[in-house]
Amino acid sequence: MKEWKCVSSSVVSSHPPWLQLERHEIELPNGTLLSDWMWVDTPDFVNVAAVDREGNYVCFRQQKYAVPGITLAVAGGYVDQNEEPLMAAHRELEEETGYKSDTVTFLGSYAMDGNRGCGRGYLYLAENCTATGSAVTDDLEDQELILLSPEELRIALLEGKFGVASWTATLALALLKRGVSCQDI
Amino acid sequence: MKEWKCVSSSVVSSHPPWLQLERHEIELPNGTLLSDWMWVDTPDFVNVAAVDREGNYVCFRQQKYAVPGITLAVAGGYVDQNEEPLMAAHRELEEETGYKSDTVTFLGSYAMDGNRGCGRGYLYLAENCTATGSAVTDDLEDQELILLSPEELRIALLEGKFGVASWTATLALALLKRGVSCQDI
Repeated sequence: MKEWKCVSSSVVSSHPPWLQLERHEIELPNGTLLSDWMWVDTPDFVNVAAVDREGNYVCFRQQKYAVPGITLAVAGGYVDQNEEPLMAAHRELEEETGYKSDTVTFLGSYAMDGNRGCGRGYLYLAENCTATGSAVTDDLEDQELILLSPEELRIALLEGKFGVASWTATLALALLKRGVSCQDI
Repeated sequence: MKEWKCVSSSVVSSHPPWLQLERHEIELPNGTLLSDWMWVDTPDFVNVAAVDREGNYVCFRQQKYAVPGITLAVAGGYVDQNEEPLMAAHRELEEETGYKSDTVTFLGSYAMDGNRGCGRGYLYLAENCTATGSAVTDDLEDQELILLSPEELRIALLEGKFGVASWTATLALALLKRGVSCQDI
């Protein structure tokens, strides 16, 4: 099973630092050329499933432009230039929630769209989180911090209440890693 | 907590039927206008976690352009015009895997990017799947069908082997709904 090769690329529309639309010319393993493959480049980001010392998940209620109505959400944000994703995870966790963790585990990196890219997310599980002060509220969106037990989280996930795929992936992976009690599943 | 309102939008770059880049003018709840919010419109799609009668998950090994190397994957694809997402889930399941299910459950719909959109995925769990014939292999990518037990799937998910966020969300939700045996978690 061979990879598709990018033979050349050109910028179609550039909107720094948020988004760049590109046209890629791709060579398939059988030699076929696709001359017009659209690709969306957006900044790398992190999502962090944060668990406090009582085993509750630190989440938000908030409004996001791409999600109708109010959604539940996890901590996260863009990786700064010259910043490692793990450092971004620690920074965003503290900025957004006011919690710190000394036990952060990598849950993988993922494309948002298997064909077009649309950004790459680095997902983390932050355990033993402790409140260290007030969160920095410099994001454009209102957000309200909430704590969910593992079973409350499992139900909310299965009801689709976390309206972005990477948030749902982050939290569902966290539950699969840490477990929910046997009678719950 | 109020929603952001789209006041107006214009097309920046159009690539039918795959992708349209738009500029949205947005009014925030406090009255602030954001005049230059980039938005990516791509077709709705479905992802399907398929479970056979023995409780194994029907997955793929395949190559996707946005994922380095070989990735594990779920059944899925774009929703056709005038097609309901549930019908697309049944169609893609049979076309891609050669399996059919009479027990398909909705696992929610999700934005790929909370800020820019980048498509909306409708996620499903298809249980009691039975093989009905050969899959239709009209996609551009090579793919090889594999069966994973719940515990094999859980380990593969936690190792980040499903390289797209919505695939990971689909399968992790399926495991959280159906359960993995108590000693596994």
